[in-house]
Amino acid sequence: MSPTLPRIAAFRKSGTDRYGVVLEGGIVDLSAEFGARFATLQQVVEAGALEEVIAAAEGRAPDWRSDEVDFLIPIAAPEKLICIGVNFPDRNAEYKDGQAAPPYPSMFIRFARSFTGHDQPLIRPPESPQLDYEGEVVIVIGKGGRRIAQADAYDHIAALSLCNEGTIRDWVRHAKFNVTQGKNWDCSGAMGPWLVPFREAAQLDDIELSTRVNGELRQHDRTGRMIFDFRYIVNYVSTFTTLVPGDVIVCGTPTGAGARFDPPIWLRPGDVIEVEAEGIGCLRNTVADEPC
Amino acid sequence: MSPTLPRIAAFRKSGTDRYGVVLEGGIVDLSAEFGARFATLQQVVEAGALEEVIAAAEGRAPDWRSDEVDFLIPIAAPEKLICIGVNFPDRNAEYKDGQAAPPYPSMFIRFARSFTGHDQPLIRPPESPQLDYEGEVVIVIGKGGRRIAQADAYDHIAALSLCNEGTIRDWVRHAKFNVTQGKNWDCSGAMGPWLVPFREAAQLDDIELSTRVNGELRQHDRTGRMIFDFRYIVNYVSTFTTLVPGDVIVCGTPTGAGARFDPPIWLRPGDVIEVEAEGIGCLRNTVADEPC
Repeated sequence: MSPTLPRIAAFRKSGTDRYGVVLEGGIVDLSAEFGARFATLQQVVEAGALEEVIAAAEGRAPDWRSDEVDFLIPIAAPEKLICIGVNFPDRNAEYKDGQAAPPYPSMFIRFARSFTGHDQPLIRPPESPQLDYEGEVVIVIGKGGRRIAQADAYDHIAALSLCNEGTIRDWVRHAKFNVTQGKNWDCSGAMGPWLVPFREAAQLDDIELSTRVNGELRQHDRTGRMIFDFRYIVNYVSTFTTLVPGDVIVCGTPTGAGARFDPPIWLRPGDVIEVEAEGIGCLRNTVADEPC
Repeated sequence: MSPTLPRIAAFRKSGTDRYGVVLEGGIVDLSAEFGARFATLQQVVEAGALEEVIAAAEGRAPDWRSDEVDFLIPIAAPEKLICIGVNFPDRNAEYKDGQAAPPYPSMFIRFARSFTGHDQPLIRPPESPQLDYEGEVVIVIGKGGRRIAQADAYDHIAALSLCNEGTIRDWVRHAKFNVTQGKNWDCSGAMGPWLVPFREAAQLDDIELSTRVNGELRQHDRTGRMIFDFRYIVNYVSTFTTLVPGDVIVCGTPTGAGARFDPPIWLRPGDVIEVEAEGIGCLRNTVADEPC
């Protein structure tokens, strides 16, 4: 796997939404050059122009320091934002011969406004103290299709990202079925920090995924152990709905969310959550109470 | 309640997407006049211009016959398309003192592409014969907000419509939780035929809602019997997510879907399904097998 893959972020600077390539020393702003063709990073992906935009940043010096911009979620308004439920076996109760494994993935849909960008606070609402984290790998569709074969699935992925699939746990259980309301609180989760172009299978097949809260490791697994792997997910989802460029799939979390502890450990204002995956980056967020 | 409310439809004519007011004799096309300001009917709603557009059609003769256009779903790409689960008590097991009533509504999200327009065929996919109907009333948000009080809820509704919340029943049960995949097959449901502006409480409070299959009454109830009424729904949904103009909420179906029969009765190619509600109209669709 390439040691250093390019990173393309959407961000806000001086009140305007922009995008650019993130280097160690800062961000090469590409909105001036490409903004007329692609107003947003989502439009870059939809047009299949991610590699063109990346190439244009080569050899250029950063325009902004990373700490002087506000990171946005990479795909602002995807036609679909699909989340896969828990997708790694419990380490204390490994599935034997697949017996206990569910036959199909559980999935739900989130609205983009339930996510905030990298380095922005996750919002704990006054209605519940049960804000919880879930670290996950995100795939962004680059080439649409219906009933995409598993063998072709990777050809349909344009980029990777990370998600803290933040959840208001008691509201997940409001209804007997469907977790919708607990998964859709405004800014209760995060996505980013950026997109990494998807160029080879090794970027997904068996990468390490970790979630830390205040530096303490809470979730840790490898994508090679996923119950439903990325190829399966693309195939299964595209069986019932036509995928289009810019669609976002959040691919399921390992065990170890706060709800799994006894007693449960909920996130509190000031907590720092980091979701990190090999070759993609580290999505970092704090927690804040909703302003009254 | 006004006997004849205006009806504003989105439709396709000669390859272009348009909108206009539907009269008995045909459709007054308003895209020529308003298209530069509002490309779509959704943009009309988002701009709060529904009544302005309606007024412009007054006294004008139809430009098209209804049978020479293809009806589209009224709001093509809402930021949110939220569906409430079964929302009317079972007539054979009425809730006594609310004991058996669920404490909160079950809800799920559908993609707009899972719906087709009035008079278009619902698509039965080759993967399942279990296509089922669910007739429902649709509210379209005209004024956004968060934590909208029940007393103010009606002020936030711009328009009404109808939904056949078509479902692939076995795929609803693929996962232990979350009905997502059974509710999101391309063109498995329908929405329309049009929007009716929401002007007074009597248009929602206790209207008759019926679903017929090949002329046979299958679902029949009144919105006054809804477990969670429209005001409650707007309040509850806006507790966790900020509603915006153009958001669509499908408000739950009465008992009597095909799955409730013993044995179940699934829809078949050639069937005609009509969802009708007092003061809104009649959404009519046939069923067709997906072309191979």
